[in-house]
Amino acid sequence: MAPELTRQRQADRSRETRRKLMEATVECLVAHGWSGTTTTAVAELAGVSRGAQLHHFRTRNELVTAAVEHVGAQSAEQLLARADAVRARPDRTRAVVELIADFYASPMFTAALELWVAARTDPDLKQVVVALEVRLGRECHRLAVDLLGADESRAGVREAVQATLDLARGLALANQLTDDSRRRAKIVRRWAAMLDSALVEERS
Amino acid sequence: MAPELTRQRQADRSRETRRKLMEATVECLVAHGWSGTTTTAVAELAGVSRGAQLHHFRTRNELVTAAVEHVGAQSAEQLLARADAVRARPDRTRAVVELIADFYASPMFTAALELWVAARTDPDLKQVVVALEVRLGRECHRLAVDLLGADESRAGVREAVQATLDLARGLALANQLTDDSRRRAKIVRRWAAMLDSALVEERS
Repeated sequence: MAPELTRQRQADRSRETRRKLMEATVECLVAHGWSGTTTTAVAELAGVSRGAQLHHFRTRNELVTAAVEHVGAQSAEQLLARADAVRARPDRTRAVVELIADFYASPMFTAALELWVAARTDPDLKQVVVALEVRLGRECHRLAVDLLGADESRAGVREAVQATLDLARGLALANQLTDDSRRRAKIVRRWAAMLDSALVEERS
Repeated sequence: MAPELTRQRQADRSRETRRKLMEATVECLVAHGWSGTTTTAVAELAGVSRGAQLHHFRTRNELVTAAVEHVGAQSAEQLLARADAVRARPDRTRAVVELIADFYASPMFTAALELWVAARTDPDLKQVVVALEVRLGRECHRLAVDLLGADESRAGVREAVQATLDLARGLALANQLTDDSRRRAKIVRRWAAMLDSALVEERS
């Protein structure tokens, strides 16, 4: 086999191992919480040797932070893939707010919540997670502005978009112990109507 | 000493021990998280013997759940104590939304968050916490309706009040790793304006 092709295959395999480890980490966080998410449990679930795992992630904190960032980015991509259909709808604001609320009420949020809560009382982890929070927060805000077609140069629009994201996180929190989807649907509909008035009001 | 007086003093002392244990639990949850909140750590922090602790709370789950409920009820009382001043204000909606946002962005919420997240992956604890969530949720909703002077018989008002509480919880979540109070103040102001329009609109 040509050396070039071998290198390519090795790189593919390495990326695949990395992806497997990150996805197993999120799965583990959702199923067993922070305390159950050990590097051993994740390697086993991913079907990856401890040696290969250590090659990719030296510590548990490194693994878990990378995993949540990876799944966050992946979910954002999935959200964007559904964006064009939503942008064209006459009830765009409502469709977008529903999309954002669903985006948060997901296993991705549950995994992130485990990480956030653990980071609060772990100074090393906290440092990394605060930086991650800033990156993910900015990315979600940018995405929401884009999906809503909101003009942030108008007074109050930026805060209304941010409120949408904070509300979505609050609703996701209420979904952790029980299925809150029926209550959430009603609140999302009401908020979308209020947000739509606010965006129109600011537009005029 | 008359037997009646002795009994009274014993009851007072017992209540006081119970209160100390519950407050130490919340302090422990905030400082050391769920994994650091052992019955031993709490008894030590409260200055209560292990025997006395076991007399009041047989298990860690019982202690932690009672503690969060106690602090939740206490915080709600403090909120109510400030209610009269707020009700009279011309910018009542804004004052109430600020009060609610502050109520959630507190150590009480941090302690509850530790309990909620732990309950997600602990079936025994989950059962108790779901019941607690229903009680606290109802109580907070009732309180918010009362403070806002909202008329829930009108369409959309109930959902707008619930959205206010979910938003407050989302904002409290964003306050766990860093001080988010400046951003929160702007969002609360914007939200209050939108809520006020919604309440007025429903009134008309």
